[in-house]
Amino acid sequence: MCQLLGMNCNVPTDIVFSFTGFAHRGGRTDTHHDGWGIAFFEGKGVRHFVDHQAAIASPIAELIKQYPIKSTNVIAHIRKATQGQVALENCHPFVRELWGRYWVFAHNGDLKDFFPQLKGTFTPVGNTDSERAFCFLMQELRARFPDTQPDLAVLRASVAELVGQIAAHGTFNMMLSDGTALFAHCSTKLCYIVRQHPFTAAHLSDEDLSVDFATVTTPRDRVAIIVTEPLTVNEKWTEFALGELLVFVDGMPLPGHAIA
Amino acid sequence: MCQLLGMNCNVPTDIVFSFTGFAHRGGRTDTHHDGWGIAFFEGKGVRHFVDHQAAIASPIAELIKQYPIKSTNVIAHIRKATQGQVALENCHPFVRELWGRYWVFAHNGDLKDFFPQLKGTFTPVGNTDSERAFCFLMQELRARFPDTQPDLAVLRASVAELVGQIAAHGTFNMMLSDGTALFAHCSTKLCYIVRQHPFTAAHLSDEDLSVDFATVTTPRDRVAIIVTEPLTVNEKWTEFALGELLVFVDGMPLPGHAIA
Repeated sequence: MCQLLGMNCNVPTDIVFSFTGFAHRGGRTDTHHDGWGIAFFEGKGVRHFVDHQAAIASPIAELIKQYPIKSTNVIAHIRKATQGQVALENCHPFVRELWGRYWVFAHNGDLKDFFPQLKGTFTPVGNTDSERAFCFLMQELRARFPDTQPDLAVLRASVAELVGQIAAHGTFNMMLSDGTALFAHCSTKLCYIVRQHPFTAAHLSDEDLSVDFATVTTPRDRVAIIVTEPLTVNEKWTEFALGELLVFVDGMPLPGHAIA
Repeated sequence: MCQLLGMNCNVPTDIVFSFTGFAHRGGRTDTHHDGWGIAFFEGKGVRHFVDHQAAIASPIAELIKQYPIKSTNVIAHIRKATQGQVALENCHPFVRELWGRYWVFAHNGDLKDFFPQLKGTFTPVGNTDSERAFCFLMQELRARFPDTQPDLAVLRASVAELVGQIAAHGTFNMMLSDGTALFAHCSTKLCYIVRQHPFTAAHLSDEDLSVDFATVTTPRDRVAIIVTEPLTVNEKWTEFALGELLVFVDGMPLPGHAIA
């Protein structure tokens, strides 16, 4: 299975520390070497990097580890191909525009016999179950709200319902963001942590690297990291319930939760 | 005005040499410092890099100059803001999906009072005249060919007609590609060169750098470079006619031409 990493914050934050550990799972501490990708929102704009080389061997991954791009919403993915060949167009995250916003999506899992009726408004470029699921999600959201993006509470209920339909076909751990909120759904495995004042030091589980967040933050910063498996060894990560959809805004999950 | 650079080839080729000269126009040999961007097709996939820093100061531009990404279709842009503030979402090239292919678009010029009726299938994320023009193009092409991409000759005629409508509003030098063909339209300024066997040496006009293409090519390689102003001082560049739309496939312009 693939690995997912998401970040949602209340102030633009760099993901260098978490990405450094995560990238090692692409070909070194794990066997996910069929490409990787990461998307950073910067306001309404997106920086989108994909590569079908293993993250551990990628010069672009190296750049990201060294160049602190600050963002309030990030989604990253390391691919272990289950459906679709190893090709750039099959690397997550995928990006589409809806309601005049870019939407970024990444999936970990495997959907069986999932061939929804796609009507041409969003068509997959590659041949993965994941991109089909994303196009279906975008198509159905636009069908429900043809003109403008609904309020977050309304959108959340619709996403939960659609995600439930997709997840009935198999494993559907996924992350989705429009740059203001980050939706994360757990079929089988996902956990998160909220880092906020008082910040402490964290030590990566995939590489011998520590950072003392107290030295690089202000007391009002809040950062949620959502990931397939905990990235650090000395912090307490919260596991998602199976079937849970959480929506992160300003570095924390919204109250209440939807079981999709 | 902005600067445009395109490459269309019959075999995947790196654009390091041309981009090196071009990037110097972003803040050093010219005053286009309001961001830049480049998109490389790799099969059906796209690597898309945008930055609102000047190209001359951008770590991502530095990576591209050093890391030979091979592609058959590339579009790059250096921005001098005329409409829309300096922001990531206003950096060209823009990317949208149509008919299950990514389409990449960049524009140089200025459109006056261009507010076409956009029906929601393609909506601008930023606030430039350029992205409005791109969304209009995509919307109208899908309206004419709702299901699948037409033959290139048919598509070319439609693009020429739509580009003509847009260009009536002002200056519309533009490049558009789906990864198989590169459409280039000249309102005021665009030129191209086809490099093929026997290859010779070329010397950049913006930096003291030469390359002998004979040492890095095979006799069957063919590369078209399309750019706002000639990049080299010792080669013969062909100027587009005003109003000319050329379509480049496999490293050369298709015979015939459409005046849009």
